[in-house]
Amino acid sequence: MSKRKKCFAVFILNFSLIITLALSQANANAQERIEKPPYLDIAEKILKKGLQEEGAYAILKKITSVGPRLTGSPQAAAAVRIMYQEMSDLGFDDVHLEPTRVGRWIRGEEEQARLVSSQFGSVALPICAIGGSIATPDTGISAEVAEVHSFQDLQKMKDTISGKIVFFNRPMDPTLLETFRAYGEAADQRVSGAAEAAKLGAVAVLVRSLTQRIDDFPHTGLMRYESGTSRIPAACISTKGANLLSGLLKKDPDLNVYLRLDCKELSPVTSYNVVAQLTGTEKPNEIILLGGHLDSWDLGTGAHDDGAGCAHAVEALRLIHELELQPKRTIRVVMFMDEEFGGTGGRDYARSDNRKDEVHLAAIESDRGGFAPRGFGIGVEPKTVEHLQGWQYLFEPLGTLWIRQGGGGVDIAPLAKQGTITIGLIPEFHSYFDYHHSGRDVLQAVNPRELELGAIAMAIFSYVIAQEGVD
Amino acid sequence: MSKRKKCFAVFILNFSLIITLALSQANANAQERIEKPPYLDIAEKILKKGLQEEGAYAILKKITSVGPRLTGSPQAAAAVRIMYQEMSDLGFDDVHLEPTRVGRWIRGEEEQARLVSSQFGSVALPICAIGGSIATPDTGISAEVAEVHSFQDLQKMKDTISGKIVFFNRPMDPTLLETFRAYGEAADQRVSGAAEAAKLGAVAVLVRSLTQRIDDFPHTGLMRYESGTSRIPAACISTKGANLLSGLLKKDPDLNVYLRLDCKELSPVTSYNVVAQLTGTEKPNEIILLGGHLDSWDLGTGAHDDGAGCAHAVEALRLIHELELQPKRTIRVVMFMDEEFGGTGGRDYARSDNRKDEVHLAAIESDRGGFAPRGFGIGVEPKTVEHLQGWQYLFEPLGTLWIRQGGGGVDIAPLAKQGTITIGLIPEFHSYFDYHHSGRDVLQAVNPRELELGAIAMAIFSYVIAQEGVD
Repeated sequence: MSKRKKCFAVFILNFSLIITLALSQANANAQERIEKPPYLDIAEKILKKGLQEEGAYAILKKITSVGPRLTGSPQAAAAVRIMYQEMSDLGFDDVHLEPTRVGRWIRGEEEQARLVSSQFGSVALPICAIGGSIATPDTGISAEVAEVHSFQDLQKMKDTISGKIVFFNRPMDPTLLETFRAYGEAADQRVSGAAEAAKLGAVAVLVRSLTQRIDDFPHTGLMRYESGTSRIPAACISTKGANLLSGLLKKDPDLNVYLRLDCKELSPVTSYNVVAQLTGTEKPNEIILLGGHLDSWDLGTGAHDDGAGCAHAVEALRLIHELELQPKRTIRVVMFMDEEFGGTGGRDYARSDNRKDEVHLAAIESDRGGFAPRGFGIGVEPKTVEHLQGWQYLFEPLGTLWIRQGGGGVDIAPLAKQGTITIGLIPEFHSYFDYHHSGRDVLQAVNPRELELGAIAMAIFSYVIAQEGVD
Repeated sequence: MSKRKKCFAVFILNFSLIITLALSQANANAQERIEKPPYLDIAEKILKKGLQEEGAYAILKKITSVGPRLTGSPQAAAAVRIMYQEMSDLGFDDVHLEPTRVGRWIRGEEEQARLVSSQFGSVALPICAIGGSIATPDTGISAEVAEVHSFQDLQKMKDTISGKIVFFNRPMDPTLLETFRAYGEAADQRVSGAAEAAKLGAVAVLVRSLTQRIDDFPHTGLMRYESGTSRIPAACISTKGANLLSGLLKKDPDLNVYLRLDCKELSPVTSYNVVAQLTGTEKPNEIILLGGHLDSWDLGTGAHDDGAGCAHAVEALRLIHELELQPKRTIRVVMFMDEEFGGTGGRDYARSDNRKDEVHLAAIESDRGGFAPRGFGIGVEPKTVEHLQGWQYLFEPLGTLWIRQGGGGVDIAPLAKQGTITIGLIPEFHSYFDYHHSGRDVLQAVNPRELELGAIAMAIFSYVIAQEGVD
């Protein structure tokens, strides 16, 4: 071949190569257009925007900026105002408050405990009043200590309890993989320990903090007195403190513990659920609810419990709104009040007159912290779960989330009675109880990316349900 | 029916109910005996013992107790001694040290930077020398700053670089789900930034820390000079510092940065890989290796990187040993030296004469921190991966771990050339780079349960391979 012909041949070869490549690319694009499963594009867009902006952390920063948000407190009221303003600024629809009457308890100025032993002297014990406890007398309580691990133990020792401080020291079972189950199995001591001990004449209770971490942070939480039995003061003791006390009790069973609490109940006040939505373009009265609770315990600033859940819900709606996705059904955020102290917010929301022309198809609650999401637990029958599992592929861009039976949340439980599908976001859970209800539950304990992934997951799930329903 | 007959009928009913229940229970037990998949019992035993004892955290505490373990440092030598003793105390077989010659670099006493602007005055910048950097003169370096985001940027500005400090400010891409990928794509600035900038006459470089967290912690790491180009000092700046500097540069492009580093290279020293094993009862020369690296960077105490990996490996072997599982093939722990500063430990291990009668079937490295395990990445062809995926059910008691292609580790890479299947443990990775190579990488950043689960996963995987091989 002449040089010229060669050049021409090369040109033709290159040209046909380019054409072939272009065609196969066009083909691939067409295939992608046809074969990309529905909503996967949108899921990827939500993911990208979320990870780029990390808006959930900015929202959480605002929520925690007011401090601890104990039900009925001025800080809880401030959080209501701030989040009302925030959701208005974000351009959500129908931003409003729904009242709920809540109890109010305050920790007071002083709480302290120490063990006093003829052998070991006086040793301070890190404690905190349990939420709902009465105070000790101003001069405190001093008494010998009866250590027990269960209500059965307590019954066995019933003749020796009178006049003593009962020390409930059963740890959360570390061998259970699910930390929430281990928590559930140990929480009776904190919730009902004082009532049970009072029946046998105890003067106070100390309860081992519900955490698997061995440290100096006491963890608070709710307790309940029983009507008809006397009320005695109740405090949680840090796990290190509990181990110390237990160890020294073996050597000096006669040691005393001094306990001083200053907490009290005040009159109930009116507080609010904070509500906003993107109104559905086709079926506005069919609701997909995203929820968390705005109140928190008072030792930290409730960052994981449950500032994270509120930030998840608001950020999910923000992502959908700013991507102009225009859901067919309404997606609504509810920041519930009073999950920790009685659950009035969830109950009042469900029975409000505002609900009477509404159908809540599904409610997704986030109340297990701001850690990397692992999946969704669905609180309905297997058939519906199986149907919803059809959307599992949408969570593959997030590293795969599972969808399983078993889930929900305290605030959305009242909706379940109306036939709503209740769904709980389940994040990584091994370190949750390191923070839960303690002074460690602060903004710095939350990772912005992990938090954002929870919001992204809730945005994707709520949006696809808003478009496709649940049948 | 008479009362007596009624009683008898109830008795018979109860009796047959008891028999039926007993039989069905026996049946269930028999079925369980037959149908429980192989090794699942053992996996559950390992899980239970691990969660109960949390031995990995105790090991990590010992490793980090010596402080930062920079290659060649006295602390690294102390860690070698402590872990040799620890594995001897645990009753492992053939505990020994294998020498490796390592370089040595020290940070020196002083490192500081500040920006000096006619508009903004003097502002301190949180920085640290990059590992391997030369020092500045005693009086420091003061120069104008050229901000770039890539080597392409640098080339475009090549005529303006001479005499300046080049400020590499490309963040890790937050939109990539895999943080390790985002790290990989941004690390060129830290590794080669000084060499590239020096070619254009720069006097020093400042590199944005490789983390997605916006905070005041500078993150160090390795850099390399190029032979034939001049060596200039290199430091990392915290992300907050980088954002500040970038913002002020826009308002005052003529501002200067003052940089002072005092680091230097010392003579190489002999250090050691620390090795121990449970010798196989049937095929002692077939090895399953569990590895991590004992050296660390010097700003924290290398708890996640890679104290966690060492603790994983040692704890995995401890669990197998104390459960008296007696592996058929040898399971060996290697705590490699010098992963961070040159990888000599991994290379010397693979080529040692000690290896000549050994076959390494598989090597599992943990070098991605002590977070909750997500899965295993396998660095071989799909067929083998598929085969190993057959064991995936053993990880269901841990909450399900995936087994996927793609993985390994720096220290075990030299073994891959010999045909060893290299496997990387992949923990949850979203917050890893919050800690990596920074002052935040300390014991308190590791959760004992999450750490333990990694050790449990490695124990299960190594044991089943020791029993069944890889074919």
